[in-house]
Amino acid sequence: MQATQRPGAQLLTDFQQVRAHSHRLCEPLMPEDYVVQSMPDASPTKWHLAHTSWFFEQFLLVGVTPNYVSPFPHYNFLFNSYYNAVGARTSRPKRGLLSRPSVEEVFAYRSYVDEKVEQWLNADPDLDGWRDIFVLGLHHEQQHQELIITDLKHMLAENPLDPVYRALPDTPAVDPGPARPVEFTGGLVWVGWAGKGFAFDNEGPRHRRFLQPFALNDRLVTNQEYLAFIQAGGYEQPNWWLSAGWATSTAQGWQAPLYWRKQGEEWGVRTLAGTLTLNPHQPVCHVSYYEADAYARWAGARLPCEGEWETAVQSLPLGGHFAEEGLFQPQPAQAAGGMRQMFGDVWEWTRSSYEPYPGFQPAAGALGEYNGKFMCNQYVLRGGSCATPASHIRATYRNFFPADARWQYSGIRLAYDRN
Amino acid sequence: MQATQRPGAQLLTDFQQVRAHSHRLCEPLMPEDYVVQSMPDASPTKWHLAHTSWFFEQFLLVGVTPNYVSPFPHYNFLFNSYYNAVGARTSRPKRGLLSRPSVEEVFAYRSYVDEKVEQWLNADPDLDGWRDIFVLGLHHEQQHQELIITDLKHMLAENPLDPVYRALPDTPAVDPGPARPVEFTGGLVWVGWAGKGFAFDNEGPRHRRFLQPFALNDRLVTNQEYLAFIQAGGYEQPNWWLSAGWATSTAQGWQAPLYWRKQGEEWGVRTLAGTLTLNPHQPVCHVSYYEADAYARWAGARLPCEGEWETAVQSLPLGGHFAEEGLFQPQPAQAAGGMRQMFGDVWEWTRSSYEPYPGFQPAAGALGEYNGKFMCNQYVLRGGSCATPASHIRATYRNFFPADARWQYSGIRLAYDRN
Amino acid sequence: MQATQRPGAQLLTDFQQVRAHSHRLCEPLMPEDYVVQSMPDASPTKWHLAHTSWFFEQFLLVGVTPNYVSPFPHYNFLFNSYYNAVGARTSRPKRGLLSRPSVEEVFAYRSYVDEKVEQWLNADPDLDGWRDIFVLGLHHEQQHQELIITDLKHMLAENPLDPVYRALPDTPAVDPGPARPVEFTGGLVWVGWAGKGFAFDNEGPRHRRFLQPFALNDRLVTNQEYLAFIQAGGYEQPNWWLSAGWATSTAQGWQAPLYWRKQGEEWGVRTLAGTLTLNPHQPVCHVSYYEADAYARWAGARLPCEGEWETAVQSLPLGGHFAEEGLFQPQPAQAAGGMRQMFGDVWEWTRSSYEPYPGFQPAAGALGEYNGKFMCNQYVLRGGSCATPASHIRATYRNFFPADARWQYSGIRLAYDRN
Amino acid sequence: MQATQRPGAQLLTDFQQVRAHSHRLCEPLMPEDYVVQSMPDASPTKWHLAHTSWFFEQFLLVGVTPNYVSPFPHYNFLFNSYYNAVGARTSRPKRGLLSRPSVEEVFAYRSYVDEKVEQWLNADPDLDGWRDIFVLGLHHEQQHQELIITDLKHMLAENPLDPVYRALPDTPAVDPGPARPVEFTGGLVWVGWAGKGFAFDNEGPRHRRFLQPFALNDRLVTNQEYLAFIQAGGYEQPNWWLSAGWATSTAQGWQAPLYWRKQGEEWGVRTLAGTLTLNPHQPVCHVSYYEADAYARWAGARLPCEGEWETAVQSLPLGGHFAEEGLFQPQPAQAAGGMRQMFGDVWEWTRSSYEPYPGFQPAAGALGEYNGKFMCNQYVLRGGSCATPASHIRATYRNFFPADARWQYSGIRLAYDRN
Repeated sequence: MQATQRPGAQLLTDFQQVRAHSHRLCEPLMPEDYVVQSMPDASPTKWHLAHTSWFFEQFLLVGVTPNYVSPFPHYNFLFNSYYNAVGARTSRPKRGLLSRPSVEEVFAYRSYVDEKVEQWLNADPDLDGWRDIFVLGLHHEQQHQELIITDLKHMLAENPLDPVYRALPDTPAVDPGPARPVEFTGGLVWVGWAGKGFAFDNEGPRHRRFLQPFALNDRLVTNQEYLAFIQAGGYEQPNWWLSAGWATSTAQGWQAPLYWRKQGEEWGVRTLAGTLTLNPHQPVCHVSYYEADAYARWAGARLPCEGEWETAVQSLPLGGHFAEEGLFQPQPAQAAGGMRQMFGDVWEWTRSSYEPYPGFQPAAGALGEYNGKFMCNQYVLRGGSCATPASHIRATYRNFFPADARWQYSGIRLAYDRN
Repeated sequence: MQATQRPGAQLLTDFQQVRAHSHRLCEPLMPEDYVVQSMPDASPTKWHLAHTSWFFEQFLLVGVTPNYVSPFPHYNFLFNSYYNAVGARTSRPKRGLLSRPSVEEVFAYRSYVDEKVEQWLNADPDLDGWRDIFVLGLHHEQQHQELIITDLKHMLAENPLDPVYRALPDTPAVDPGPARPVEFTGGLVWVGWAGKGFAFDNEGPRHRRFLQPFALNDRLVTNQEYLAFIQAGGYEQPNWWLSAGWATSTAQGWQAPLYWRKQGEEWGVRTLAGTLTLNPHQPVCHVSYYEADAYARWAGARLPCEGEWETAVQSLPLGGHFAEEGLFQPQPAQAAGGMRQMFGDVWEWTRSSYEPYPGFQPAAGALGEYNGKFMCNQYVLRGGSCATPASHIRATYRNFFPADARWQYSGIRLAYDRN
Repeated sequence: MQATQRPGAQLLTDFQQVRAHSHRLCEPLMPEDYVVQSMPDASPTKWHLAHTSWFFEQFLLVGVTPNYVSPFPHYNFLFNSYYNAVGARTSRPKRGLLSRPSVEEVFAYRSYVDEKVEQWLNADPDLDGWRDIFVLGLHHEQQHQELIITDLKHMLAENPLDPVYRALPDTPAVDPGPARPVEFTGGLVWVGWAGKGFAFDNEGPRHRRFLQPFALNDRLVTNQEYLAFIQAGGYEQPNWWLSAGWATSTAQGWQAPLYWRKQGEEWGVRTLAGTLTLNPHQPVCHVSYYEADAYARWAGARLPCEGEWETAVQSLPLGGHFAEEGLFQPQPAQAAGGMRQMFGDVWEWTRSSYEPYPGFQPAAGALGEYNGKFMCNQYVLRGGSCATPASHIRATYRNFFPADARWQYSGIRLAYDRN
Repeated sequence: MQATQRPGAQLLTDFQQVRAHSHRLCEPLMPEDYVVQSMPDASPTKWHLAHTSWFFEQFLLVGVTPNYVSPFPHYNFLFNSYYNAVGARTSRPKRGLLSRPSVEEVFAYRSYVDEKVEQWLNADPDLDGWRDIFVLGLHHEQQHQELIITDLKHMLAENPLDPVYRALPDTPAVDPGPARPVEFTGGLVWVGWAGKGFAFDNEGPRHRRFLQPFALNDRLVTNQEYLAFIQAGGYEQPNWWLSAGWATSTAQGWQAPLYWRKQGEEWGVRTLAGTLTLNPHQPVCHVSYYEADAYARWAGARLPCEGEWETAVQSLPLGGHFAEEGLFQPQPAQAAGGMRQMFGDVWEWTRSSYEPYPGFQPAAGALGEYNGKFMCNQYVLRGGSCATPASHIRATYRNFFPADARWQYSGIRLAYDRN
């Protein structure tokens, strides 16, 4: 009977499931794979595993344990990501210089934290003031689970040996047919989180917005459609691009999405299963905001703003292709019928700058640094991807990356003005 | 009787006034002063004078003159700013490498363009399709008039000789008293240009927005108020700053607004009249978005969003301290009474990312590059400054700069949530 | 009886000994330690192990094996260091991005190469034309053995955990007494290799030089002596420094040799055994050419030129502290008596630019790239270090590094003009 | 009668001649031309004019004038080049940010210094201790006269208007015939200055060297010969290049000497008279050490070392094409007969690193910074160029630039080993 369950029991189950998922992601890895940082934006797997543990140690164990002393005194320096209030830390681009602690030591650290957290939960503690932090720690670890996948993908793709993380199921090459715009009347809408469960602080406060009439396409842009943009000279003509996008694209020598590789006349794609043939019907993926925006302009459309996107999913279930399926590739849209692929598959770039909602206040203390201080020069993405845990996503979830970021599973849905 | 005036007569008068104002700004200069580019964002005065003339030549004379051949064939390369559709151009950071054309040759180029434009206007041309471009050329030149002032200020401030552009009138040291919040109810408002005269394309389309209740302070933040932030350790404590702002501030070694100079225990300020004592009651000026945002957070407030700002000026006249007065310094607020200093003095940073309004479409052709392609990673400023020509500003005018820009006359007005 | 030994038998013994030494150096390592590249000048241990094997494969096996096809086709790209004639290769600063091949795979590659080389040697081959390349391969691997040590030292020193490669014997803190100059008359001397055995091409042709009278100190500069330079403000006063040295030192924030760490009032030193107390009587180590030159000027002396150094060791035996002892730290000078510490302990910076000797011709083909193309903007070091295999060094051996390099075991011997 | 001449009279004449030559070089300039700094290595003409005057003020007037106070107190900061002992100074790359002092003010500064120096000379001063500094000041100004020409050439060549400094005489297109090697036996030679008059400190002490037998070509490498290197793929094949040279050449996109411009199938050359057709018989000019070295290797030769070069000119008169002729272009070799073009035309790259001669000691005080501190990572050039004043050059003169410098009049003479 559920009535007899101690309040911490569900938390314990959730904790064990989330922590176990991190370990499962590491199963295909050799020790060497945990170490490398392939660019400043990415982190070694080892670092993700330790940092998510440090988060529970620093924000939970320190608080609930009288006179807590960490048996790992250096880890606060090594595995703090960006919390100024918690002190100095390893410079971000130097995370890959650390061969120690070894993978074994990092897993020992995880075990230590697991044990302490479980002890605490099992002791039937007063959860007041700690439940939110605990749940935040779970969602935080889920965010890093996605980053483990995307950072590994980036690292392996730098390697001329074309190494394989693991074999992936085939992605069906089924033509989804033409995209169809779905019409919305706009007007006064509500945006932001108002539910009971967990949401990040940046998803609120819930507030009203006024939208013009608009339409969103019922599916994502496919590789085939994006290829037409390339073949039409999309990467050679500045007129489709934002000024900063054109400068970035030419400086970086972009000719296609991040993991596309020209092989003679054909295009291949680097994936976690090695280099595969480009599937024309898959959603295009690993494009920057700049490319998404240029493609949309070329296609006579625009990117959605986040209010439009949130309005469009209001009555949709949270279904889609998520990390639990282990596909780690976006899937072609299935038979038509309303909005498709809104959740999962790829994060959808919106044209909305990542800004505080009206009345937004970050939390007090170090955890106030979680989201608020990044609200500048980034763009909002919505809907989760095939690397996002299903239990992590919400209709109001706001992901954010700089306009030149390409190593996330980021794709494109077209929007249209309707006046 | 106005009825007898030829349609081009008013345009001619406007043209002559605008062009003459550019020349007046150069009166204090030696030839050497026209040449230097003190940073990639700034341009030599010579370049501004030629570029604004090239604008009329390229977008007007070429169009209205059959088989037009420029007597200055290289100038299209030298004085194109950023119009990809018009061809290759001098790399922006290299504008200061050009000793030629000489100042004299640049003024000759101006005379040539003046003469051709006046000939065209005097020939009673069909203005259809050209009036808008012509008027755009006037407003374009006004924008560069402001840049001439701010770029000269930056260049002279780099010089240890403390050179003087010209003597400026004293700025009165009158205490404006405490700032008072003025309350607004929000709700559905209209934003954007809907008038008959000229406006930039980025000011429209006019559209509705929903605002929460808010308050704006009735005057700008003063030097004295900003000094309190400095003295409270504002530049030493990351908690007030956006993450990108803190990174920029520490990397650049910021300790105060751009032109402040510590002189023993006192602060001086570099101005176009040389180094002056800091006037505590002047609006603080030459701060970046990052500093404005950090100050606001420290002060328990926030920056306005641009819809709020535009709502607050709806019934205000367009008065304020503008370039025609030749003060080139913001002035202390005068006796209270409603919103003060909304126009002129300093551009006011808003928290609004520079984004297209709903339904925005840039013009076809090269002039479509004027505004739209810059709508990324910049923030909107409102209201004009003491270096803006009075006839250039509007309630709907949207200026924009990156978050780290400090060499414009940019300042701070505080806003508050009201729920 | 030696007469019965096959010609390849000694080569086989040498090969096995050299290859085994590389493995011994790796015994203290975890797989994670093999992966990291701590700076562009350094390489991962894994890379060194594979590259030295590739060298035998590429320059020997390919040549002696009809229709040779490598079972590791990608390794020519991954493990070529700088031989343009052999084709494209991994960009040097990206050697640390490769988690694969794994350590196990690299050792398998070594075994494969070992087996093929041994098969060849055991088949009693015609050594003509291959003996020199084979022996070069051995000396090449010895060079990388030293780099394995210095690169690991650099990598571990970046780690706040102060990890230990392995415990090292104590270095005795015995005062060697004052240094004494040993006088040399100069005149016409012979410089360069003229012996029968192996030497690198850059050690010849042997030729005459004319030297002015000079003196060399009979021992190396100690930590204590260098500390006096620091305490006298050596790092704060430009007058002791070359212009490029001063620019580098201030830009890098140098305050002491590379691995010194201020701990309160005391100095510690990062070593392969972790952080130890500074031993004042040890030779100073891990200084750049710039620091060595500045120290010498401050001490009223200069660095030796390489002809002087070579003249001074003409009648000395090749004894000293080398890698085989496993000390990996320079040792204090022992009781006086003639020139001390000329071999082993630390590489001695000379003032001589790394230039071709008169009549120098690099070998034809790819191996001609071994030395000659680096004869520019580098300085010669002499004598070997405590990380150099004893069988690798010669009186005529010319090591070379850029003037700002500090991660090698490089130290200082003072010289004086005598007129 | 010379016997009656005051000791300072000759100094006065020399002073006036040298100072007047600087002014003559400026005659073709507009004020704007004096201001621009086209790269960090170059300086504005204005700066050269002021710096050479500051040199006399700082090192002479300050010393010979009791209680000297400069009427230009800021100029010590603005116009100090690199003398740490004399205090802080404008950062080198920022010399082009100074529009003031104006050209007129700089000439007023020159007049002031001229007047004070002449007053001092006319007062029949005790020249002891000051004559050397005075003469150094003259040679210092001559060095900057050459830099005025090379820096102006660089600045004008950046300008798409192809501006002309002034018309230059035609350079005859006479085929000098094949180069012939002139043989030298080498052996013990003397190198360095031992005369009575002025020489820079870096030209001594005079000392003996031992040279192997060698040959030098009797004339410089021509454009036609260098073009053959280009056409043979010299810029596409790494095997001719030093490693650092290849890295520089590919990073910079070098395809030809600095001022060559491909015009269809033909080559033009930017000169002080605008763009001219390439004269095949002119000495090749504006090549880096890297290019000179690569060309020599391709041609089966090498660059001379400076001892060889100095030996080869021992009995040659100091004749050649120098700045006084105002040609500012190297001239084709004339009818054969011994070593040709050793002086004037172009500086000849030697393979010799710029090092102190045995026993070299820089002067005490600030003037000791003149040469010694630059003896690192530079290469020696010999013989002067068509932009060097004739009275400035000596057989022992050592010019020096980094291996990638191309904006000086630098060319190539081939040398050969003879064993």
